Amino acid sequence: MQPFPFSAIVGQDEMKQAMILTAIDASIGGVLVFGDRGTGKSTAVRALAALLPPIKAVKGCPINSAKAKDVPDWAELGSKRVHEAPTPVIDLPLGATEDRVTGALDIEKALTKGEKAFQPGLLARANRGYLYIDEVNLLEDHIVDLLLDVAQSGENVVEREGLSIRHPARFVLVGSGNPEEGELRPQLLDRFGLSVEVTSPKEVETRVEVIKRRDAFENDNAAFMLRWQAEDAAIRDRILKARKSLTKLKTPEKTLTDVAELCLALGSDGLRGELTLLKAARAYAAWRDDTALTRAHVRAVAPMALRHRLRRDPLDEAGSGTRVARTVEEVLG
Amino acid sequence: MQPFPFSAIVGQDEMKQAMILTAIDASIGGVLVFGDRGTGKSTAVRALAALLPPIKAVKGCPINSAKAKDVPDWAELGSKRVHEAPTPVIDLPLGATEDRVTGALDIEKALTKGEKAFQPGLLARANRGYLYIDEVNLLEDHIVDLLLDVAQSGENVVEREGLSIRHPARFVLVGSGNPEEGELRPQLLDRFGLSVEVTSPKEVETRVEVIKRRDAFENDNAAFMLRWQAEDAAIRDRILKARKSLTKLKTPEKTLTDVAELCLALGSDGLRGELTLLKAARAYAAWRDDTALTRAHVRAVAPMALRHRLRRDPLDEAGSGTRVARTVEEVLG
Amino acid sequence: MQPFPFSAIVGQDEMKQAMILTAIDASIGGVLVFGDRGTGKSTAVRALAALLPPIKAVKGCPINSAKAKDVPDWAELGSKRVHEAPTPVIDLPLGATEDRVTGALDIEKALTKGEKAFQPGLLARANRGYLYIDEVNLLEDHIVDLLLDVAQSGENVVEREGLSIRHPARFVLVGSGNPEEGELRPQLLDRFGLSVEVTSPKEVETRVEVIKRRDAFENDNAAFMLRWQAEDAAIRDRILKARKSLTKLKTPEKTLTDVAELCLALGSDGLRGELTLLKAARAYAAWRDDTALTRAHVRAVAPMALRHRLRRDPLDEAGSGTRVARTVEEVLG
Amino acid sequence: MQPFPFSAIVGQDEMKQAMILTAIDASIGGVLVFGDRGTGKSTAVRALAALLPPIKAVKGCPINSAKAKDVPDWAELGSKRVHEAPTPVIDLPLGATEDRVTGALDIEKALTKGEKAFQPGLLARANRGYLYIDEVNLLEDHIVDLLLDVAQSGENVVEREGLSIRHPARFVLVGSGNPEEGELRPQLLDRFGLSVEVTSPKEVETRVEVIKRRDAFENDNAAFMLRWQAEDAAIRDRILKARKSLTKLKTPEKTLTDVAELCLALGSDGLRGELTLLKAARAYAAWRDDTALTRAHVRAVAPMALRHRLRRDPLDEAGSGTRVARTVEEVLG
Amino acid sequence: MQPFPFSAIVGQDEMKQAMILTAIDASIGGVLVFGDRGTGKSTAVRALAALLPPIKAVKGCPINSAKAKDVPDWAELGSKRVHEAPTPVIDLPLGATEDRVTGALDIEKALTKGEKAFQPGLLARANRGYLYIDEVNLLEDHIVDLLLDVAQSGENVVEREGLSIRHPARFVLVGSGNPEEGELRPQLLDRFGLSVEVTSPKEVETRVEVIKRRDAFENDNAAFMLRWQAEDAAIRDRILKARKSLTKLKTPEKTLTDVAELCLALGSDGLRGELTLLKAARAYAAWRDDTALTRAHVRAVAPMALRHRLRRDPLDEAGSGTRVARTVEEVLG
Amino acid sequence: MQPFPFSAIVGQDEMKQAMILTAIDASIGGVLVFGDRGTGKSTAVRALAALLPPIKAVKGCPINSAKAKDVPDWAELGSKRVHEAPTPVIDLPLGATEDRVTGALDIEKALTKGEKAFQPGLLARANRGYLYIDEVNLLEDHIVDLLLDVAQSGENVVEREGLSIRHPARFVLVGSGNPEEGELRPQLLDRFGLSVEVTSPKEVETRVEVIKRRDAFENDNAAFMLRWQAEDAAIRDRILKARKSLTKLKTPEKTLTDVAELCLALGSDGLRGELTLLKAARAYAAWRDDTALTRAHVRAVAPMALRHRLRRDPLDEAGSGTRVARTVEEVLG
Repeated sequence: MQPFPFSAIVGQDEMKQAMILTAIDASIGGVLVFGDRGTGKSTAVRALAALLPPIKAVKGCPINSAKAKDVPDWAELGSKRVHEAPTPVIDLPLGATEDRVTGALDIEKALTKGEKAFQPGLLARANRGYLYIDEVNLLEDHIVDLLLDVAQSGENVVEREGLSIRHPARFVLVGSGNPEEGELRPQLLDRFGLSVEVTSPKEVETRVEVIKRRDAFENDNAAFMLRWQAEDAAIRDRILKARKSLTKLKTPEKTLTDVAELCLALGSDGLRGELTLLKAARAYAAWRDDTALTRAHVRAVAPMALRHRLRRDPLDEAGSGTRVARTVEEVLG
Repeated sequence: MQPFPFSAIVGQDEMKQAMILTAIDASIGGVLVFGDRGTGKSTAVRALAALLPPIKAVKGCPINSAKAKDVPDWAELGSKRVHEAPTPVIDLPLGATEDRVTGALDIEKALTKGEKAFQPGLLARANRGYLYIDEVNLLEDHIVDLLLDVAQSGENVVEREGLSIRHPARFVLVGSGNPEEGELRPQLLDRFGLSVEVTSPKEVETRVEVIKRRDAFENDNAAFMLRWQAEDAAIRDRILKARKSLTKLKTPEKTLTDVAELCLALGSDGLRGELTLLKAARAYAAWRDDTALTRAHVRAVAPMALRHRLRRDPLDEAGSGTRVARTVEEVLG
Repeated sequence: MQPFPFSAIVGQDEMKQAMILTAIDASIGGVLVFGDRGTGKSTAVRALAALLPPIKAVKGCPINSAKAKDVPDWAELGSKRVHEAPTPVIDLPLGATEDRVTGALDIEKALTKGEKAFQPGLLARANRGYLYIDEVNLLEDHIVDLLLDVAQSGENVVEREGLSIRHPARFVLVGSGNPEEGELRPQLLDRFGLSVEVTSPKEVETRVEVIKRRDAFENDNAAFMLRWQAEDAAIRDRILKARKSLTKLKTPEKTLTDVAELCLALGSDGLRGELTLLKAARAYAAWRDDTALTRAHVRAVAPMALRHRLRRDPLDEAGSGTRVARTVEEVLG
Repeated sequence: MQPFPFSAIVGQDEMKQAMILTAIDASIGGVLVFGDRGTGKSTAVRALAALLPPIKAVKGCPINSAKAKDVPDWAELGSKRVHEAPTPVIDLPLGATEDRVTGALDIEKALTKGEKAFQPGLLARANRGYLYIDEVNLLEDHIVDLLLDVAQSGENVVEREGLSIRHPARFVLVGSGNPEEGELRPQLLDRFGLSVEVTSPKEVETRVEVIKRRDAFENDNAAFMLRWQAEDAAIRDRILKARKSLTKLKTPEKTLTDVAELCLALGSDGLRGELTLLKAARAYAAWRDDTALTRAHVRAVAPMALRHRLRRDPLDEAGSGTRVARTVEEVLG
Repeated sequence: MQPFPFSAIVGQDEMKQAMILTAIDASIGGVLVFGDRGTGKSTAVRALAALLPPIKAVKGCPINSAKAKDVPDWAELGSKRVHEAPTPVIDLPLGATEDRVTGALDIEKALTKGEKAFQPGLLARANRGYLYIDEVNLLEDHIVDLLLDVAQSGENVVEREGLSIRHPARFVLVGSGNPEEGELRPQLLDRFGLSVEVTSPKEVETRVEVIKRRDAFENDNAAFMLRWQAEDAAIRDRILKARKSLTKLKTPEKTLTDVAELCLALGSDGLRGELTLLKAARAYAAWRDDTALTRAHVRAVAPMALRHRLRRDPLDEAGSGTRVARTVEEVLG
Repeated sequence: MQPFPFSAIVGQDEMKQAMILTAIDASIGGVLVFGDRGTGKSTAVRALAALLPPIKAVKGCPINSAKAKDVPDWAELGSKRVHEAPTPVIDLPLGATEDRVTGALDIEKALTKGEKAFQPGLLARANRGYLYIDEVNLLEDHIVDLLLDVAQSGENVVEREGLSIRHPARFVLVGSGNPEEGELRPQLLDRFGLSVEVTSPKEVETRVEVIKRRDAFENDNAAFMLRWQAEDAAIRDRILKARKSLTKLKTPEKTLTDVAELCLALGSDGLRGELTLLKAARAYAAWRDDTALTRAHVRAVAPMALRHRLRRDPLDEAGSGTRVARTVEEVLG
């Protein structure tokens, strides 16, 4: 069964916006979706898959290489024809072993042919796409460490069992988490580019609308999918257009200063916040088809880019989203 | 020995009703039976197996496919004749390994023929049927996580040891648990569609009746089974009829609003409660052979659909079942 | 060396009675013997082995099948002659692995012949007999869970390593435990039909008699065994006779009410207590060669059938045996 | 290098007496030697080895069978000549695996010949001799359980990996322990027949004598061994004579009563104390070449037979040895 | 993608200086970089790789031997031509196994050829270069112990699985750590020659400059790399020159006394501080192209050489860097 | 690189003396060196290696047998020529497995030839030499137990995997430890013959001298080694001479009494202290070339022989070395 259409999701605008921004510029670096159970986090992430524009990739290439020359030797591909393929959205199942994530020795070939062949893992398949982790707070620590390592370097290095393999593994991490089930390490938080919070709608009308759409999706699937196809396609086209205009967008010195002052005022650790905020603002400007980056763009994406990078302030009971918004108000006016 | 007849169970009406509802609409999503030891939880679940209507399935198909074209390649079936088979009710034994649950590499074939063949697990066999977990609170966490993952996606994905298999695994989880032996995680609770509580009967007459039937079942089995055969068959027929009428049942907008208001008033997290309540009310209407969904149907099934989704309220000492009933009274009048 | 004769055990009448009752009706469900170290628990259980009447079984059948047609295929028996064999009394050694208990893949055949053959375990060998666990409180939890599972279903299901075997495994669990070395889980207690307490004798004469018999057993074994042979044989014959008269025994409705009222008054969880009490009273009536079940029989076995099913009452310092007796007095007069 | 001569040990009379008694009657059941480090516990136990009388055994038999007909099939012996061999004294090294203790599948034969052969373990080699455990409090629990199991039944049962072996394993456990490094479980204590305490000598003369002998043993070994050879031989002969006279010794009824009254007065759990005290008193009478068992013999060995079986009495600060002696005084006069 | 250019790092002068000193004299012994997340620690260490002067090494030699005669037998090299190679900078990934670190038996050769061949690990590849550990506080203890062992002895000893290999493993440890995520053991701290602290810049201008350079690096890589190439080359040349002048540098007796008095005054444990301080001061003098070692050189490098060797002083709230500086002031004037 | 010369170590006289004494009489039983990190413990122990006189041993013998007849069968040596070899000083690396320490089945031979061959471990190689453990407090408990077992018996017994090997393993344990990183078990302490404490020098002159020598060793190695060669040789010759005179040294009865009184007064547990003190005093007399053992010799070595055997005295704050010295004063005048 196809996933629920992205455009049919009722409300949850910030989450949808964040996902669209990473689709425009993957280097923004991942989205973390916080929320109680049952708020549709998983549905939204799976919906993203159907929305994403296709990529050009060598058919059958385990790392989705764009060009024939980039297919690794160990892939042992015959023909290396380039075709159009869906942007990969790979699910990292709970309990996945390190072998499964990074790839490992191909035991069958080792036993039957006495060869040391590499069997690529989920990181290979996620290259140039998305890696989705449901309930990221339940993931084992050593897998988290490994993912962060690869997510930062963009390369998967496997040196075990006599293998010495490295292949590109550039992907956008998308995680969902429930803050009630244990906090995330600050280091992990910092590696996600954007974060959003989703909650159950509080109005009866909205809830009825959610139930109706869900009900139609389950009981009258074909008609429902058709109904939303065009809206998803429109978003996809707009993303593709924004990707192109992104490179032409100029960044005024003033905006850089805005970004730096905002982060200093918020006291967010390190410089990753500034870089992400800048990129997200640019992607947002491109999405809006604006030609120049302005303070308004920075203001619009600051909460999702900075909310998860604040230090806890025991004297300030406001949520981190509110603190970001307040500081934006003070600094950027 | 055949299980105890479903209709011969003395009392425990809510539990019996819940099981019947999931037999009418499997997408309601599982039943959790709470109760002290010795209250007949296991007996009831095993009784369900004999009650369920048969399914049409390809003979010998490891995933009980309805049609020849859906038999997976790895099943290596010769003939693919469709026959009528009992609805599968699979027991998940305590201590089952992940291999046994999800399926794994067939070691024998790997060793003797050098082939990587898939040996399906319990999830394959439970497809289109029931998966029963006795003492669900004793299950190991990683198995629970895995089950919830599959139960939600309806698909079992095995990517280990060089295997890359995915097959449908749609089943109704039935679990029994003893609240005295440790609480269940809210996340786990939320994945069960319905929950019921069973207790030992408190009247001497009922207890004597239970002992008598049990005694007859053990000491005069053939006669006893014959005695209850017709009653079980009647329930089975009614379930089949309800399944058909379910698709024709119309859902008035008003009832959707009722459902949403009730859940908002109860403050149950997320939207899964609403969807389940709606489905359970519909199945109940179909069971009663009513043609229109009414507030009465919602009221009847609200406790079993919502009881396990409430947040703990330290100021309200009433049990969760009572809180649901009280709120139903206030909201639906 | 043969075990110590059952009839030569000095005192410990309740324990001996309980063991005899389960020999008359195995469905009573096991005996748990509590007591300090050195009170002869192990001796008594081992004595039971020599006392039990023989069974008819296919020679060499790994599950002691009564009839040739019930010998499982995997047993690979040539001739299937039925002979008379001692009732099996199988020892479950501390530290037994799950493989050893349930049976497992026969590694030798797998390696030498490339066949997946089943090597039956202790549960197969205990079929139709007794499974004895010394120091049941020291058993590992996952083995306990497994035993309880099989003890209840009467069937051993092995689904691992590509095996898919199920065979009957009906046995009486006999366990000895020392309450000072850790409590047993209520769930485990509830699965034993009867429980008895043994203590060291407190009179010098009794102790001297114990020493004398033990001394004679060790230093003059042949004469000692001969001395008690006839007494053991008499008990064995009486058991066989009681088994036959058991099926003819009528159960007045009044006694069922007595049983239910007694259990309600004691507040024992669930209904397993009632069923066991009823069965034990019947076996006791048959042992006494009485033709009708009376309140006196119920009274006689109530302590051993219910003592271990009471909830702990912090306000009542009396031992559980005393509480049962007191309630029997109040309810049955 | 040969062990230090038993007779050259300075002082430590109770320990030496206890060891001699178990050499006269192995069924007394083992000696536990308590003491601080450096008090010569290990030296004494190793000295015992050289002192013990030889046994008649089939040459090369892995279980030291006395007769050719008792050699197990799996030993695969060619000739089965009986010869005279030293009483086996087997060391159970710290960290010994269960395989090493009980025996296991012979991997070499399994791999090279495809046969399931049994490779006997330390329990086989200790049959008819001594099993020595240095620092018994450091032994892993599952090995302790296993040893106690075998020590009581006199039989080693191996049912793993497709093996089904049982062979006699009758041995005297000798353990040394340091009470400062953790208490022993009461259950373990109870399985040792006798216990003794050793301490460092407190007089300069004795210590100088110890140093001198130890020095001579190390620096002038040959002369030193020769010096003590005759004294060791005398003890050995006396043990052999006592073994013979033991069977003729009569036990007056009065002594049985003495033994029972003493144990009742001490409140030692169970009846194992009585049996051991009786046996130790008899062995002591035989060692003294007395023809009748008297109260004096009971009195002499009561501390070593009962000291480790007392329950802790928080109101009585006297050591357990003193409490035994005091009660002997009161009961036996 | 090439790493960020070393010379393009904005600020962070102490860190850059420390890295340069170890490039001049590797025996100084490693650099530990402390700092919050996002302060560019990883970037700086990776930048170092591109800066380092090349080494002469036998082509393909797994331990980067300088001369053909030093290639180990197990390398099985055909030709042993010496070429110029980049200084190795090896990443120790989180979760690296001991096998991967030290090298291990080559399983493939063992299985296919029955040979025990050695497969070198990361320690071999790091020989004559740098071993980089990101998040050194997250490394498992047994890997830390192993690294410290090898780092001190300069030799990797592998004696397992029948291998008996030792090969040179001289490398500079570079570690980054976040003091908020758990303290490092004093023993581990002491093994690093130098330590530096990095923080996020606090001025808007600096932060804007960082963002600009980072942005240019990502979006206009080729031009950016070209821009900084010359500056990196200049540093590299100066390092090479300093290495040569280092051997000619004279060390006045007075400076030795300065060093010893400073360390005594600071109460740093052991003598490793003195030796490191001396070496670092010399390397610094050589870097500055000074011909004589003076008190000024000692003063300049004292904080980075001693900061991590102080005992915690609960009465002195100043940071360890400040305490070193203050004591330098007092002792050296 | 050769180790630092023993004679070039500045100060640390007690440590050097203790090492020399065990080189004269190995049966003294090991040296434990306590001290903070950076005090040159490892350097000193490694220096010892170069100082030790050579031994005569069969070339290639894995246990360094002195005579051809003592070479074990499993060594499979062809020629058994005796040559002069350095005294073995074996390093026990942190994290060494039990296999590596005791030796194990030679897997290669088992796989390729189907033979059960023994692959000797570190204990074999240490025979007749030194076994050095750096950071003895970090060693795993089961390895410590194993080492103590072998150190006491002088024999390595391997009975696993079908092997039954015993070979001599007589060695002097040398350990270094840091009392700040966790205490050693009293039992472990007692097995070391001597213990010494080392500290960083507190005078600037000494520290400068240390740095100078260390610097010369690193930067002008050849000259430095030559400079100290003669001094090391002189010590070596004196050790050889002392070994010979040791056997002729007479021990007056009076000294034995001194030794016993001293140990009684100190209340050291057991008698191992007395024996060690006696041996150490003799070795010291031989080293001084004295012909008679006197009270002065006992006094000189008492601190290093007894310091680690005292019980902790909470009322006496003096270090254990001081307490020994004070008692020596009181007892020996």
